Amino acid sequence: MTEKSEQIETGAVVPEPTAPVDAPGEGWTALPPRSQIGLARSFVSGDPDGPRLRVAYFLRDTDHAMVGRAWFGPLAEGPPRHAHGGAIAALLDEVMGAAAWLAGHRVVAAKIEVDFKRPVALGATATFVGSVTRVEGRRVFMSGALTLPDGTVAATSSGLYVVVDIHKLGRR
Amino acid sequence: MTEKSEQIETGAVVPEPTAPVDAPGEGWTALPPRSQIGLARSFVSGDPDGPRLRVAYFLRDTDHAMVGRAWFGPLAEGPPRHAHGGAIAALLDEVMGAAAWLAGHRVVAAKIEVDFKRPVALGATATFVGSVTRVEGRRVFMSGALTLPDGTVAATSSGLYVVVDIHKLGRR
Repeated sequence: MTEKSEQIETGAVVPEPTAPVDAPGEGWTALPPRSQIGLARSFVSGDPDGPRLRVAYFLRDTDHAMVGRAWFGPLAEGPPRHAHGGAIAALLDEVMGAAAWLAGHRVVAAKIEVDFKRPVALGATATFVGSVTRVEGRRVFMSGALTLPDGTVAATSSGLYVVVDIHKLGRR
Repeated sequence: MTEKSEQIETGAVVPEPTAPVDAPGEGWTALPPRSQIGLARSFVSGDPDGPRLRVAYFLRDTDHAMVGRAWFGPLAEGPPRHAHGGAIAALLDEVMGAAAWLAGHRVVAAKIEVDFKRPVALGATATFVGSVTRVEGRRVFMSGALTLPDGTVAATSSGLYVVVDIHKLGRR
């Protein structure tokens, strides 16, 4: 917990993760550190020890899907004591985009849709998965899901991502 | 710019806002400080002086829509030097939800859809609007848009928000 989050009147203590967010699950292979895959300044995963959102990515051995864990800290709030829908949406956007990149598609998001099925309490460490649904030329269709520790699906997402020259975008 | 963002190898200087994010536009009335309307720990607007996302909300006098400005800082990155789609989605989720609350509907998000039309360069101060589209019982349909300084629409959104007992959610 940072100095900043301690200064905030919380009304509720948000528990630290019970297990390290970046500990691999069974059949998960670690991916390179975020800073090596262009995520050091990421809005979603750029602060892996902070009080907002801690995210760790892995490759699932069986099907090469992108999987991992996300912890929603005290500064990820939306409704009182619960994760912001926007934090869940942002996470699933990055999960779907990163899964597309992992599958070799250099994409940016064109459209995403997120269904919020259950509230996510702050302090929860949820697991996620992102997969390619289908590819049509430059259009890559993705899906994602966020699951609570008890196995309940908290949110699902779908997205259309489009292959672009990412370096051209960066030079604008 | 915080110490943290200075430590990061940026490759590009992200400009500070050219005008204060919280300066009202013409016909905009200031809303109470975030901390008084339950947004002090918000994932989106909880850090109004930080290096990620600075957001200021106003009421538009003509139609009582929720409007305001958002600055995307160096730690809001997605594609190189551009705002993360997830940051845009998170912002529009909060804008739509806050607009629903401003209109008297105590909602949480059930489903959102975001269309990314143009990339948003880091350092840009964009304007946004959130409005109620229609109400069907407990279901409140919302729309949102994010517009670049040159008037180009960068993203649009729609969302289904549902009236809940927010205090019950908070006590879970």
